[in-house]
Amino acid sequence: MIEVQLTRIIISEVNENQAVFLKEIDGDRQFPIMIGFFEATAIDRRVKSIERPRPLTHDLLVGVVDQLGGTLDSVVINDLKQNTYFATLRITAGNEIHDIDARPSDAIAVAMSCDPPLPIYVKEEVLNAASGKK
Amino acid sequence: MIEVQLTRIIISEVNENQAVFLKEIDGDRQFPIMIGFFEATAIDRRVKSIERPRPLTHDLLVGVVDQLGGTLDSVVINDLKQNTYFATLRITAGNEIHDIDARPSDAIAVAMSCDPPLPIYVKEEVLNAASGKK
Repeated sequence: MIEVQLTRIIISEVNENQAVFLKEIDGDRQFPIMIGFFEATAIDRRVKSIERPRPLTHDLLVGVVDQLGGTLDSVVINDLKQNTYFATLRITAGNEIHDIDARPSDAIAVAMSCDPPLPIYVKEEVLNAASGKK
Repeated sequence: MIEVQLTRIIISEVNENQAVFLKEIDGDRQFPIMIGFFEATAIDRRVKSIERPRPLTHDLLVGVVDQLGGTLDSVVINDLKQNTYFATLRITAGNEIHDIDARPSDAIAVAMSCDPPLPIYVKEEVLNAASGKK
């Protein structure tokens, strides 16, 4: 499991090609994940700490986890199938660990909504396949 | 507290004026809430039961509540200040009731993501003010 960081967000208002770039912290491998416009702007607002007078969707999710006694732990990008990335959002509650299936865009938006942001990990084989490097 | 139902969703691709209309079940009062494009399409997809191969943001929220042992109960539109509506999402967990602050658009999208959809209530004074009728 390799820890990565969000290094770039590309938002285009004229086409559907929004992307976030994840780069490994202890190395040079990186790759883009194509995401939707809403998710890209949601992530961008958080990275730029733009004030949100009302809780946005991912803030609501963070608030719900907190109210129900859970703790957001981390995000794992754990699979890549037919150009679609898969992720899980890890939440701990008491002694239980819940890994909840999520789109990477939502998982990353949740990660960036936390303070400090949650760590983001990528499975070794996904990183190899995505970055085209071993 | 008055129960309402979602009667209309207006989605415009050319301007920012998306809206959902809520109408009381046992009466004629109704009112629109202006919401964002993303939220409007999220609600619309649910109403039309459009297949979602991956969990969308509000599905993820419903999944998180379930995993943490909570039960989504209802939505209440509980305030109207300076043309902004406020809502709470009621979640029960064990003997506890959590009323979590949310934008009406998110609360309604969550309500419509549940099967059956959660009931939506509006406080009497909000319905009076919003519909212009007593």
